[in-house]
Amino acid sequence: MHKIEVSMSRDLFAENKKIADANNVLLKKHGVTAVDIMGSIGSGKTLLIERMIEKVIGKKRVGVIVGDVTGDDDYNRIRQHHVPVVNINTGKECHLDAHLIEHALEELDLENIDILFVENIGNLVCPADFALGCDRRGVVISVTEGEDMVRKHPLIFQIADFVVINKVDLARYMDVDINHITQDLNRIAPQRYFLTDARHDQGVDELVQWLIWENE
Amino acid sequence: MHKIEVSMSRDLFAENKKIADANNVLLKKHGVTAVDIMGSIGSGKTLLIERMIEKVIGKKRVGVIVGDVTGDDDYNRIRQHHVPVVNINTGKECHLDAHLIEHALEELDLENIDILFVENIGNLVCPADFALGCDRRGVVISVTEGEDMVRKHPLIFQIADFVVINKVDLARYMDVDINHITQDLNRIAPQRYFLTDARHDQGVDELVQWLIWENE
Repeated sequence: MHKIEVSMSRDLFAENKKIADANNVLLKKHGVTAVDIMGSIGSGKTLLIERMIEKVIGKKRVGVIVGDVTGDDDYNRIRQHHVPVVNINTGKECHLDAHLIEHALEELDLENIDILFVENIGNLVCPADFALGCDRRGVVISVTEGEDMVRKHPLIFQIADFVVINKVDLARYMDVDINHITQDLNRIAPQRYFLTDARHDQGVDELVQWLIWENE
Repeated sequence: MHKIEVSMSRDLFAENKKIADANNVLLKKHGVTAVDIMGSIGSGKTLLIERMIEKVIGKKRVGVIVGDVTGDDDYNRIRQHHVPVVNINTGKECHLDAHLIEHALEELDLENIDILFVENIGNLVCPADFALGCDRRGVVISVTEGEDMVRKHPLIFQIADFVVINKVDLARYMDVDINHITQDLNRIAPQRYFLTDARHDQGVDELVQWLIWENE
């Protein structure tokens, strides 16, 4: 986060936490399970959400909030799946916060949503500090980012409930040993992790099984 | 950036700009040309800097400042090239700022450096707002991040002096059309751009030719 006075910084986080808690109360009231999907740009968050939508549609009613600094690329991708979706453009903000989610929730018919995916801004640093009021927080990393992502950004993995290591099919072209990533995870943030190749629909079933069906 | 009071935000940027200007005066006094290398995590900034060092060593005296949230992975990689290097760990900060650079410069023997590479924190949003006092700012993106990186993060490309599209060898495995990236660049930020595959040492000569030799 940026250098600001500590007192202001604390107020900022306390205020965010308060709104996040209120968001969660609202979601629970309507029976919505919400999942915050964090991860760097290009890690494959949007495609992973699309794959999960394909797997649960008809069984669960899905809604999506997509966050981007600018533009509606991800929003338009999700819309093609005929699920309710709200686009948040943060302008210059490098993370979503609870207040932005509070307003996005006003635009959704929560009574008709079972699972809400929230795609956070592409960034492995700042989103960690800002709870949104979701039930679970996950981090998506891509093997194309290199082997050292976890040990370089421990905080976001530690606050996450699960980790997705995506684009595993590209490891062989990158000289990346996935075992080195999972070793770091086991040491730094022994959360549940999943190996996926969302493009070729590998490993997403296991993620959906755990994230959605086992946690009903 | 994070939500803070506008007045404080302005002071923050004004203060940063003042220190950045002083950094540049100091660098010029010692005949140092400094290059700020920005880009998301995993875009290949460190390897690109390593390749550039290999190409100029013996002809130019190189120094490096590496920024990471935590750890010394990149620092240790650069050290193997036997050039002076300073590691900055920002803790939770998602960008370098001029004040951090001011202190890093104190640790370098500037009189014996011609080219200073500054590797910024892996993030395509926040570093744009914080000038460091370098002569040039470049953004490195990887084709593995997808085709839409430029239009999703226009600001950092607009404030940059050059752009490196890296890992071009992986485009074919990703269904990424590099022309779509360069079309966005030409429309949004018509800066000089270079196509590289730093791993296999492709395209780096052209970058070094322009960045270092043509701008003496």
